[in-house]
Parts: sequence; structure tokens; C-alpha cells
Amino acid sequence: MNEIELVPPEKIEEKSFSIIRENLTRTGLTDGQMQVLLRVIHTTADFDYEKNLVFSEGAVETARKLLLQGTDIVTDTAMAAAGIHKRSLTRLGGKVLNFMQEADVAREAKDRGLTRSWVSMERAAALSRPLIFAVGNAPTALLSLADLMDRGYHPALIIAVPVGFVNAQQSKELILQRKAPCIVARGKKGGSNVAAAIVNALLYQVTER
Amino acid sequence: MNEIELVPPEKIEEKSFSIIRENLTRTGLTDGQMQVLLRVIHTTADFDYEKNLVFSEGAVETARKLLLQGTDIVTDTAMAAAGIHKRSLTRLGGKVLNFMQEADVAREAKDRGLTRSWVSMERAAALSRPLIFAVGNAPTALLSLADLMDRGYHPALIIAVPVGFVNAQQSKELILQRKAPCIVARGKKGGSNVAAAIVNALLYQVTER
Repeated sequence: MNEIELVPPEKIEEKSFSIIRENLTRTGLTDGQMQVLLRVIHTTADFDYEKNLVFSEGAVETARKLLLQGTDIVTDTAMAAAGIHKRSLTRLGGKVLNFMQEADVAREAKDRGLTRSWVSMERAAALSRPLIFAVGNAPTALLSLADLMDRGYHPALIIAVPVGFVNAQQSKELILQRKAPCIVARGKKGGSNVAAAIVNALLYQVTER
Repeated sequence: MNEIELVPPEKIEEKSFSIIRENLTRTGLTDGQMQVLLRVIHTTADFDYEKNLVFSEGAVETARKLLLQGTDIVTDTAMAAAGIHKRSLTRLGGKVLNFMQEADVAREAKDRGLTRSWVSMERAAALSRPLIFAVGNAPTALLSLADLMDRGYHPALIIAVPVGFVNAQQSKELILQRKAPCIVARGKKGGSNVAAAIVNALLYQVTER
């Protein structure tokens, strides 16, 4: 075990990214994709994302354009919402939307035998404006988005990174099959922290912190 | 790849825990420790925690007692704070404290050349009452707690799970050496999501959701 390293606070992230870069073997990423991958590994210390993380063609460029236009970001958890760097997002004119805690969402979910996550995505889609979806927790949020897309909805971008053992993997594959712009962590891994890390990696490409 | 499984919303977590149990090889945990490990793997889909997660003797029993007494929980990120199940905590009389966003914390950190996380821990320790620390992000929060302990401070419990490549591992070993009640994810892995998952696994042992 190494000794404590004396790194000034403002240099910690830079040093961390440099260590991650030295240990990466994946090649062929654009600079923008690499920034996303680095931040996800920075957030998880898990190099599995090197293999898991996939980008639809042009997804990072689409994300940058949307963020510069002030597009809002829909999350499926308060934790993902909390992890997104609000100062950067606000500077661009965007905000975080999260319908999970609304009383009528819980009621409708119960009535229809669905999850709150499912209903939350429908609420967002009903807003009829371009939205970035950052889903780090609930496979059912992605199932809902897939269902919406099958009925003609076009999400501007989906960050699809739910974690888990029940339908997480399958729900992410359903998104990949539907050809919306997306960034996906294939397999079981992901999380609200990963969703926030990806959003932040995109934000930091187009604005200061 | 399997098909989507039709699992009712309220059964998803149960099914997930059952899958994790089937794949665990670690033995010798108490029921309370097992609940913590299961929830961490549920949150991360990462079985490395089977090897990484360590408990000081009686840490889970100490945690349960503290939570039942309404002990407050100090976090080092808004994300960990957001992930803690507030309804359970509030029912027990506890609340989440997070000093990271306070303006004078940022100022003091800058003046002293330290991180806000370091100063935040000092602010909490100055409250002079038993506190549970849930640190999922900043190694410097743990370095601060180690320093405070060396100067006579006794944290009631430390959940020490920062993630990262710069001092995360070392800072967690410093906590283990200091003999406070603790739950630690050794090595580089951890995160705010892991910190919240551990707190919730402890909360759910002593109260309903």
C-alpha cells in the first residue's frame, strides 16, 4: 500500500484521469467519447466500463448540441439529479426534471400496476419538447421509453445505464435496438452515479464548471 | 440474452436479492452484515464488494443502536444525501447533514489549502454529539476524520467508502487502523451510491420504509 500522496485539491481529478488513461486499453474512441469513459471510471473505479460503454453514432455530438440549446435532463432518481453539476447546466439554460416524487405519479403507477419510473417517463414524453433522458436506476424506465418509441416518440438522447439483476441488461438492449441517439452501459452494471457522471462529462465539454 | 422478466414492481428487489445470494461465495457474515453486502451488490452489480467490504467488530449492531437513537448522518456529497431513504431516517428522528455547500466552508478550505470535504468533517465533529459519517466520495474527508481522531475525536460510526485512484485506498486503511466502529470498502471502489446503500441497509434493519 502506498503512502498518502500530497496532491493539491484542484489537481486530484487531473491526476486521477491520468492514472485511468495509463490503464486503458480501449482504442478508437473520439475525444468526446473518451471524456465520458474517463469520468465513468473515475466515478466507479471500475474498468469494466471500458468494455460495457457503447455510443450510438454521433451521440456525443448530439448531446453537446442539445446541452448548448438548453435542453432539460430527465432523471429517474433524486440521486442522479443530485449528482448532475447544476451550475454548468443552469449556465446553459437547462434544468433537471424528475417526476418520481409527484403524488399523482405514484397513484397512477399503482392503478395501472406499473412502476413510478414507467409513469415518470410518460410524463416527461408528454412535454412535447426535446429531452435528454438519464436513466441510472430503473429498467422499467427504459421499458417505458421503448414502449413510447414504438408508439412514435422520439427522445433526443437516452443515457441508458440502469444497474441490476432483473431486466437491467435486457432493457438496455431494447434501447440499443431502437436506434435513438444513446449512450449505454451494456450488461448489469450502471447506476445513478454513472448516469450523473456521463451527464457531467458531456456538460464539461461545452461549458465551464 | 434473456427475455424481459415479468416481475411485479414490489417483487423486483426481492428477486434481485435472491439472485445475488445464489452467486455469493463469502461466508461467516452475520445476518445484519449480509443485508449490507446484498444491498451494496444490488446497487452496483459488482461482486468485488464481496471481497472488499469489511466490518469492524459489532459495527452493524452499533449502527442499529445509533439509528434507533435518532443519530444524524453526515455525508460528503449531495448525491449520498439524496440516496439515503429519508422517510425511514426521519421516522427514527435522524436527519442528513451535509456541510459541503456552505459558503464559509468553501472559503475556509481555500484559505487553508484543504478540500471542502476536509473542512466539512471538522464542522460536523464540532457539533459535539454522536454522529454517523457516511463518506462515499472524498478521501480527504477520511484523512480529516483520521486527523480529528488523532486529536481525540470519537466518531460514533464511519462508513468509509470513497472511490478513486488518488488516496482513496490509503485513506480507508487509515480509518481501519484507528479502531473506530466502521464499515469500509477496501481498495479503490466505493462511491456515494455505495455509501447511501449501506446507510439504507442499516435503516431497513430497524424500521419500515
